[in-house]
Amino acid sequence: MRQPILGYKCTLCGAEFPYQEMLTCPHCGEKGILDILYDYRAISSYFTKETLEANKDKSMWRFSPLMPLKPRDFSPFLHVGASPLYRSNRLGKELGLKELYIKDDGINPTASLKDRASGVAVAKAIELGYDTIACSSTGNAASSCAGNAARMGLKTVIFVPERAPEGKLAQLLIFGAHVVSVKGDYRATFELSRAAIDKYGWYNRNAGINPVMVEGKKTVALEIAEQLNWSVPDWVAVSVGDGCTIGGVYKGFYDLKELGFIDRIPRILGVQSTGCMPFVDAAKRGGAMEPAEENTLADSIAVGVPRNPVKALRAVLSSRGAWLAVSDEAILDAMRVLGRTEGVFGEPAGVTATAGVIEAAHSGLIKGNEAVAVISTGSGLKDVKNALRAAGRPTPCEPDLKALEKSGILDGIL
Amino acid sequence: MRQPILGYKCTLCGAEFPYQEMLTCPHCGEKGILDILYDYRAISSYFTKETLEANKDKSMWRFSPLMPLKPRDFSPFLHVGASPLYRSNRLGKELGLKELYIKDDGINPTASLKDRASGVAVAKAIELGYDTIACSSTGNAASSCAGNAARMGLKTVIFVPERAPEGKLAQLLIFGAHVVSVKGDYRATFELSRAAIDKYGWYNRNAGINPVMVEGKKTVALEIAEQLNWSVPDWVAVSVGDGCTIGGVYKGFYDLKELGFIDRIPRILGVQSTGCMPFVDAAKRGGAMEPAEENTLADSIAVGVPRNPVKALRAVLSSRGAWLAVSDEAILDAMRVLGRTEGVFGEPAGVTATAGVIEAAHSGLIKGNEAVAVISTGSGLKDVKNALRAAGRPTPCEPDLKALEKSGILDGIL
Repeated sequence: MRQPILGYKCTLCGAEFPYQEMLTCPHCGEKGILDILYDYRAISSYFTKETLEANKDKSMWRFSPLMPLKPRDFSPFLHVGASPLYRSNRLGKELGLKELYIKDDGINPTASLKDRASGVAVAKAIELGYDTIACSSTGNAASSCAGNAARMGLKTVIFVPERAPEGKLAQLLIFGAHVVSVKGDYRATFELSRAAIDKYGWYNRNAGINPVMVEGKKTVALEIAEQLNWSVPDWVAVSVGDGCTIGGVYKGFYDLKELGFIDRIPRILGVQSTGCMPFVDAAKRGGAMEPAEENTLADSIAVGVPRNPVKALRAVLSSRGAWLAVSDEAILDAMRVLGRTEGVFGEPAGVTATAGVIEAAHSGLIKGNEAVAVISTGSGLKDVKNALRAAGRPTPCEPDLKALEKSGILDGIL
Repeated sequence: MRQPILGYKCTLCGAEFPYQEMLTCPHCGEKGILDILYDYRAISSYFTKETLEANKDKSMWRFSPLMPLKPRDFSPFLHVGASPLYRSNRLGKELGLKELYIKDDGINPTASLKDRASGVAVAKAIELGYDTIACSSTGNAASSCAGNAARMGLKTVIFVPERAPEGKLAQLLIFGAHVVSVKGDYRATFELSRAAIDKYGWYNRNAGINPVMVEGKKTVALEIAEQLNWSVPDWVAVSVGDGCTIGGVYKGFYDLKELGFIDRIPRILGVQSTGCMPFVDAAKRGGAMEPAEENTLADSIAVGVPRNPVKALRAVLSSRGAWLAVSDEAILDAMRVLGRTEGVFGEPAGVTATAGVIEAAHSGLIKGNEAVAVISTGSGLKDVKNALRAAGRPTPCEPDLKALEKSGILDGIL
């Protein structure tokens, strides 16, 4: 009775296909990213606000009836999701916003939102009988893939560009992944992973082209809506790299609207760095994507050639949202601001959305009486170098009270 | 009606005192750590398994009736706790243990178990009207104090030894703490913090001497018991530095036994590094503490002169537990093992308890038919240097399939 999936629909040509193991549209090739189509009427018969209310599993697996997975016991998997949605104590006031929420997805098992996609990918790989899963990633997709796979005994092959921050690399290695550190940028890394995956027949977790990824990432939207008791905010802000996460955010709200859990889809604010903003530029051009520089310290969203442009552009267009780019300085500033005002420590790509909300509040794009939820997609511990760059280092102090008083460290306290 | 606290009892001289703002026993001075005494009969009248079951707050604040805090709305605080208790998928089998559970406390808001103590400390400081909270710490207590305080708008002064890992330092700075990086070891750091706290009258979060800390840390035990549906394991293993966490673990189970929620207290396995094992040595001497070297890479438990020896020794003695020391090599090995087999990435001090369980399973101290819960107290992202030391670094690979195949990276996959 569960898993009533009608089939796939190509986001490019619109062709529909029956539900089976397939990655992309056979007509359009790799650019033909697929949507998974659900039979919402059938789902409504067993998945309701009441069944959710009664479900003791608080992790994202509580939403498994809305995932392209066969029913099974998900308790052996990493407990992904159930991240806090904080009502802002101070940042909202500083920005003149009446209602600001921060979704801290950095508390996931491997410390980023990507666990949501990787958990579903690992479950799918197991369902399909694979013993190895592979992906290329700037970092978080990789470490989440490795962690979720390790927990379930799957082997992993991970392709990372050499520039991946040490924190993310350390995770991969500790999770026992076979790590291919590629001399080159994200595109070269992706191409090598594609060649190897094609040749060896591993399960492909590459977020851009595998349609089940969005079905995991959407759970962040499902949680926001449930945490706000199905009264969705006016805006949801999210950082954008490959385009898969913002596609997932849209899909989550879309599902809920089709199911009648919510009455509208929030406006989605897609935020990029000015150092890498192919979507912001494409939106100005009316949607035509062109390769962009990858010149930002926010490594998780330094994606010059996004693999999932259609879903990302649609998310903003269909939700009547907006695109915005912020400077790397504004990103570092957002790290400090979010830490100081709310006690949330996000990595650069994670707080890029917050930097966008700050700018949008100042410019008036977001009005003071509008409710906003901003997603912090990863923990600042992933990228300590940039955190120290944002915050500066303390001057060591002699272990002596007089030295301390003279040091100036206590300015603002005494 | 709530917060029925009978008073304090000195853990050294046994003298009792009425409940008021006080840190240590006036007779015994700083070594006279206090226990908080509850009126369990009164608590039983409004805090039951049923009230817990009905409580929608899954964070540690669900246990606030068992904390020395006045009733209030805890939703503005960081959402501490509710960490997963994983039933082992593979490590237990490898060790011949029928039932092994891993409590991953690294997913807390600032990525360590210390959030449990800091959350309560911040709430207490606010309740008492302070505007500044201070502590000295090897790292996690500090970052958790800074994060929890930032969220609630309290100022923080943090004293850290110079050797604190960068990850922990970065957190402090991002949370806007006033950081005093002390030239010296943990003891020198502690002494300077004491002098400054005495002089300026800040709220004192130092875990060793402040009796409310244990009342936060104990929530890890409360959660383990609730997650196992009040059927406690035979053993609970925990890494030991200052002695406060293990004291908290014992206190949690003690509370539950007094309340009739559980029928026995699990045996507590206290694990230290052979490079810093004052408790292991003291236990051999019948309890007499002597200063120890601080020569371990597990920085969070490198405490040569623990401030809370009485509660720690009592936890093991009263629970008929055991003390164990493991080498730094065994700790690094445990990082890899826990990551590879369960997808949990702990920092060195966090996985020291796992290293202890591995040794205890091999030596027969823990029997194959006994149920064991091991607490991983902090995220491995806190200390990436040691993770890379444990795991090694990958050799960069040319973006070419033939180069990849020759590299040996895919050994075990192809």
